[in-house]
Amino acid sequence: MDQFVIKTRVVGVDIGIDTTTFAIVDVRGNIIAEDAFPTTDYPEISGFIAKLSDSILVLVEENGGYESIRAVGISSPSANSRTMCLENAANLPWKGIIPLATMLRDRLGLAVALVNNAHATALSEHVYGNAHGMNNFILLTLGHGLGSCFFSNGVVHLGADGFAGEVGHTCFKLGGRLCGCGKRGCLEAYTASKGIVKTAQRLLEETDAPSLMREQERLSPSVISKLCDKGDELAIEVYRRTGDILGAGLAIYASVVDPEAIIFTGGVAKAGKWLLEPTQESFEKHVFHSVRGKVQFLTSAIDEQVRTILGAAVLAWEVKEYSLFK
Amino acid sequence: MDQFVIKTRVVGVDIGIDTTTFAIVDVRGNIIAEDAFPTTDYPEISGFIAKLSDSILVLVEENGGYESIRAVGISSPSANSRTMCLENAANLPWKGIIPLATMLRDRLGLAVALVNNAHATALSEHVYGNAHGMNNFILLTLGHGLGSCFFSNGVVHLGADGFAGEVGHTCFKLGGRLCGCGKRGCLEAYTASKGIVKTAQRLLEETDAPSLMREQERLSPSVISKLCDKGDELAIEVYRRTGDILGAGLAIYASVVDPEAIIFTGGVAKAGKWLLEPTQESFEKHVFHSVRGKVQFLTSAIDEQVRTILGAAVLAWEVKEYSLFK
Repeated sequence: MDQFVIKTRVVGVDIGIDTTTFAIVDVRGNIIAEDAFPTTDYPEISGFIAKLSDSILVLVEENGGYESIRAVGISSPSANSRTMCLENAANLPWKGIIPLATMLRDRLGLAVALVNNAHATALSEHVYGNAHGMNNFILLTLGHGLGSCFFSNGVVHLGADGFAGEVGHTCFKLGGRLCGCGKRGCLEAYTASKGIVKTAQRLLEETDAPSLMREQERLSPSVISKLCDKGDELAIEVYRRTGDILGAGLAIYASVVDPEAIIFTGGVAKAGKWLLEPTQESFEKHVFHSVRGKVQFLTSAIDEQVRTILGAAVLAWEVKEYSLFK
Repeated sequence: MDQFVIKTRVVGVDIGIDTTTFAIVDVRGNIIAEDAFPTTDYPEISGFIAKLSDSILVLVEENGGYESIRAVGISSPSANSRTMCLENAANLPWKGIIPLATMLRDRLGLAVALVNNAHATALSEHVYGNAHGMNNFILLTLGHGLGSCFFSNGVVHLGADGFAGEVGHTCFKLGGRLCGCGKRGCLEAYTASKGIVKTAQRLLEETDAPSLMREQERLSPSVISKLCDKGDELAIEVYRRTGDILGAGLAIYASVVDPEAIIFTGGVAKAGKWLLEPTQESFEKHVFHSVRGKVQFLTSAIDEQVRTILGAAVLAWEVKEYSLFK
């Protein structure tokens, strides 16, 4: 009766720009075992796939065996869940269209599914986090960039080609700041890491008021939020200006989607109240009255080290089990 | 075996600000019979419900009988499909929260469902029109106001409280034109009827260039588009400016939703190419590259007289049949 072994575990993989982390996850979202290796050691995709599949097999053999694994879920930047490919990844070594899920499936003999980071984080929050039970919510990943994902009727809204949620590259100020994507005035150019630092630099040029920001070797969102904690007025003003724009942008998003909540994740979201309070204030001012006062502003309840891995694991449970004979 | 009569028809109702129209619709979307009465004759909701149910019963008795009708679908401004109520309708005589579906159901003994105009139009296009087979698309109703609805994964995205799609009241220009909703800079304030006339008036003040618009007793979007047909440069410029703003606004919408198509309906959409060409040009300029060049700009394929009635009928088919004994 060996063929009827119940498979109670999946593997979740998080491909990061620097590090690839992977873990065996059980049906309750417990991490059974995990390991990692440097993504940057594998400039060729074939080498990366070989390393990833070998590493997964080693971890699996040491922890319950291959037979206990149902499927593999992967979270990666630039992943497209409609095609199960990496598509023109700007920050990974492998260029063009990479059929990552198929490549790994063929080597492992397990079903493999792929999502981008924002989708993985949203799946994670929906099943194990603050969005549990919510059918319509927006999740933001705010760090080096501004990504997002929203749930519609209880499932991820992927859009026609899997590119939904690109709120970071919505043109918010005609003729505004130049964004990394080549357009001007994108929301990301004001609210992600570099944009916040630029806002700080401009503010320091505008005024002679004293600020501890002037004494920093290198400004970053986390440095600025630490100065907010110390009561630095100009640092607080940086987040106030950022929140003003982010809130107005999210008001557009929420007027269209009508979510129960907006969940903030990512490095910049760690600024907490310094960012969220002005963002919510601006949001309520700009949002249409039918949505006003109804949208919860939340941060994540899940440890950021495992957030995307758990999301990838959630996806793995949704995949049909793989068999050459089916 | 009378209880097993197969019910092959539904009733679709369109509550308009001036006129309420209703029709018997078969499974292929054919209008079997229809009738109408003035909405404005019934300032009290109880009188309106009595008139509507009596009129439906008369039409039904003359055309196949009560037993052939499965359910009733209603399209109305300010209808909320989450609550099946009219909610604070600005343009109808009945104020507050009106449980319209329940009231009509109790009087007719038939299941009744309710959607707003934009949702009804989207359902209609999805089943019988240009969005047939599309799982992710945006539908715009552009006339006195700017409403919208989008499909996610093949179904209407209602949002947490049924208020999704309010793109007309997204703040597009901080501190911009005053909108009817009380906010400033709403997309509707630039792109719906009154906004277009305002743009025309400002343009006529800005310049001394000749234009047939100066000779009109009353400007309206349809008058202006007729002058475009005659080659009036300033009239063409009015729609170009309108399209510039509408395209940039829709670029935000599409970056978030990633639709297969945007379908334009409503009186203002009748301007056709004069509006759609500059809108699409501005759209492609502002939209994120992952969506650029992929979104079709379409008008409706369905006669506007029956569009919302057909949509209401589509909804009626989705409703569970009503019986006191189930």
